[in-house]
Amino acid sequence: MEGDPTLRLRIFNLNCWAIRYLSQRRQERIRLIGDMLRQEGFDLVLLQEVWSEQDYSNLKAKLGGCYPFSYYFRSGVIGSGLCVFSRFPILDTLLYQYSLNGYPYMLQHGDWFCGKSVGLVGRCWDGGRDHFASHSCQLHAEYCREKDAYLPHRLVQAWELAQFIRHTSKAADVVLLGGDLNMHPEDVGIRLLRGWTGLRDAFAEATRFEGCEDGCTLIPNNCFTVKSELLPFPLGIRIDYILYKAISSFTVKCEEMKTTTGTAPGTDIPFSDHEAVMATLHIRRQGQATGANFGTAEPVLVDVVTEARTEVGIGLGAARRQRYSTGRMAVLALLLLLLQAAAALGTLVGLTAGQPFPKLSFSLLAFLAIGVLLLATGLHLFHTIEVKMLQGTEEQMRMALRALQEHP
Amino acid sequence: MEGDPTLRLRIFNLNCWAIRYLSQRRQERIRLIGDMLRQEGFDLVLLQEVWSEQDYSNLKAKLGGCYPFSYYFRSGVIGSGLCVFSRFPILDTLLYQYSLNGYPYMLQHGDWFCGKSVGLVGRCWDGGRDHFASHSCQLHAEYCREKDAYLPHRLVQAWELAQFIRHTSKAADVVLLGGDLNMHPEDVGIRLLRGWTGLRDAFAEATRFEGCEDGCTLIPNNCFTVKSELLPFPLGIRIDYILYKAISSFTVKCEEMKTTTGTAPGTDIPFSDHEAVMATLHIRRQGQATGANFGTAEPVLVDVVTEARTEVGIGLGAARRQRYSTGRMAVLALLLLLLQAAAALGTLVGLTAGQPFPKLSFSLLAFLAIGVLLLATGLHLFHTIEVKMLQGTEEQMRMALRALQEHP
Repeated sequence: MEGDPTLRLRIFNLNCWAIRYLSQRRQERIRLIGDMLRQEGFDLVLLQEVWSEQDYSNLKAKLGGCYPFSYYFRSGVIGSGLCVFSRFPILDTLLYQYSLNGYPYMLQHGDWFCGKSVGLVGRCWDGGRDHFASHSCQLHAEYCREKDAYLPHRLVQAWELAQFIRHTSKAADVVLLGGDLNMHPEDVGIRLLRGWTGLRDAFAEATRFEGCEDGCTLIPNNCFTVKSELLPFPLGIRIDYILYKAISSFTVKCEEMKTTTGTAPGTDIPFSDHEAVMATLHIRRQGQATGANFGTAEPVLVDVVTEARTEVGIGLGAARRQRYSTGRMAVLALLLLLLQAAAALGTLVGLTAGQPFPKLSFSLLAFLAIGVLLLATGLHLFHTIEVKMLQGTEEQMRMALRALQEHP
Repeated sequence: MEGDPTLRLRIFNLNCWAIRYLSQRRQERIRLIGDMLRQEGFDLVLLQEVWSEQDYSNLKAKLGGCYPFSYYFRSGVIGSGLCVFSRFPILDTLLYQYSLNGYPYMLQHGDWFCGKSVGLVGRCWDGGRDHFASHSCQLHAEYCREKDAYLPHRLVQAWELAQFIRHTSKAADVVLLGGDLNMHPEDVGIRLLRGWTGLRDAFAEATRFEGCEDGCTLIPNNCFTVKSELLPFPLGIRIDYILYKAISSFTVKCEEMKTTTGTAPGTDIPFSDHEAVMATLHIRRQGQATGANFGTAEPVLVDVVTEARTEVGIGLGAARRQRYSTGRMAVLALLLLLLQAAAALGTLVGLTAGQPFPKLSFSLLAFLAIGVLLLATGLHLFHTIEVKMLQGTEEQMRMALRALQEHP
């Protein structure tokens, strides 16, 4: 950028849906994604749901030539699924794992087992003088829009994501966020994230757009999507985003935004069950430093934070009730065990005449009680953490509201 | 600082050892700490091991007058134990929980159950124009210096702490870190943290010092310390620190450093089993911006990161072995269960003559196998996460080394 004051940056973002043993035609799709990325030569590629490290290694081997820098974020049992390929050097990375991410007993949803996180990659261009902070992330999935039990957790994640971006990108020239946010554009979580960070939506800002109608990234036209889930949305839904902002003496404009539209060119399958989003940004250095610009207009932001705080409060109530009921169950199981121990002791010292129960049923009941005790204690501890984290987020939002109202 | 270019900042840091039901004379000591803090009127108070939220609330009620701003960081089952009291407004907070923190089955050490974290408090003085980034933290305890099984975990924490500080304090004018780091001054973790962040040790830099010899914060003279653990160190050990640095157009000098010396004035007990550390810093604005200064001399830093990486690698080997042995145990338990199921099925369909085992022993064995299966699977998952996080840290350290060697 020394000679030419404008940098044209092409960004690619895709939720790859590459779950080992579960995702259909996974290896074939990873190959297709690799071929396309090599051919297109983007500047920055942000991928989610690359759960298998082998898939990452294969991509890395294939893309080494055109994307010499890459990073795979490890976390949780299965991993974070996040990886980044870049044409510019990666200086530094940092992973932030959300404090809440669903429930371990919701095995059919499985979010809890993934270490859902936001990965930060500090990158430089122009010989290290200027810096991007690129964030790649995925938030908790939405399984039922009408009765979304995970909304408080997703809001905690959106808040933590926003806080993480605010705190880690203060000295960056350009901040980028790409990811599967699992939220519709008008959802409170997106409004909170955008409002609290000042990030702009590439789809809404783009001069030119090409792709699925309304920029949707989960469409009925894709053979891997679950059609029944998209019934209320005939066009599909938009849940994958590229967001950006410039800090200090730079301006960013989104020149072009694209999405894939189902089937990949020249094949009979799409790259993933999500559509990829691609943005071309124009980054220009300005003479005058403008200073960090966080957040949107304060009155709107106050409303958004208040709305989010109310939802977190509702989640807190539910978490408290579950903490109480699991605690009560643990106490009941413990009482049953003590009762059994007393009965067994009574028989041993000959206080009661004969054997009150057959031995087998007696020990089966004892094992059942131990099982319930362990399970209920584990869940009680889990919900105790959940209550703490929801409380912490509510408290932080309260502080933010006070700050907004006191220093508008 | 508009009129006077120098700010005198008095900081207090203490590991309060306030564990409900376990710490001796807890409430009395919390009262003493509160009284002393109110009397002394520091500018910033960083406390660790305040595990009970009730203790925090009591302190807050007592200190509201002289420390109008405060924050309690919630995390984990028990909490992070971290809280901050401040004379200057707290603008913003962020909690980062370390990805590794000991083992759940080491109940006697208990670190795993605390959500050990670093808490960031963004604060302002001078009407919001200048900013501190104050970090409060506690790392995994050291239980046996000769054979320290937790060293790799503590190094992962030191690395994550250093990375967190680097990424979150780029736009701050002054960066402060106070905490119980559970490391001796010459330990690799401290050298890594200081080298990678450029933070300076208030004790080493102080113009005047008053307190325990060598600045020790765990001393035999304190009636709550375990004397046998301090046998190899007749003077005690120094594991609590105040570290600082200035970024941009500021300079910081440590004018005075103090520690408490056992028994609190006017009483027969100390404030805690740790000694408090108190630093008086002189912060002065300079005309010229000096830019961010990370790290120390590169050749030394390369050695330190290499040393830390080797230790993490040793931990990785141990974690891989434990992952393997717990996995093998889970498979054996599963095989035993299958064998029992086959035997039971055989008896049911009349293939084998009579009952091979008495019913009671048979079901006890089955329950035992189920118990071992569940436990071994849980541990296997835990060690899988441990391997991933150690691998991730090793990879990040490798990247850091490459960057240090390529762009010295």
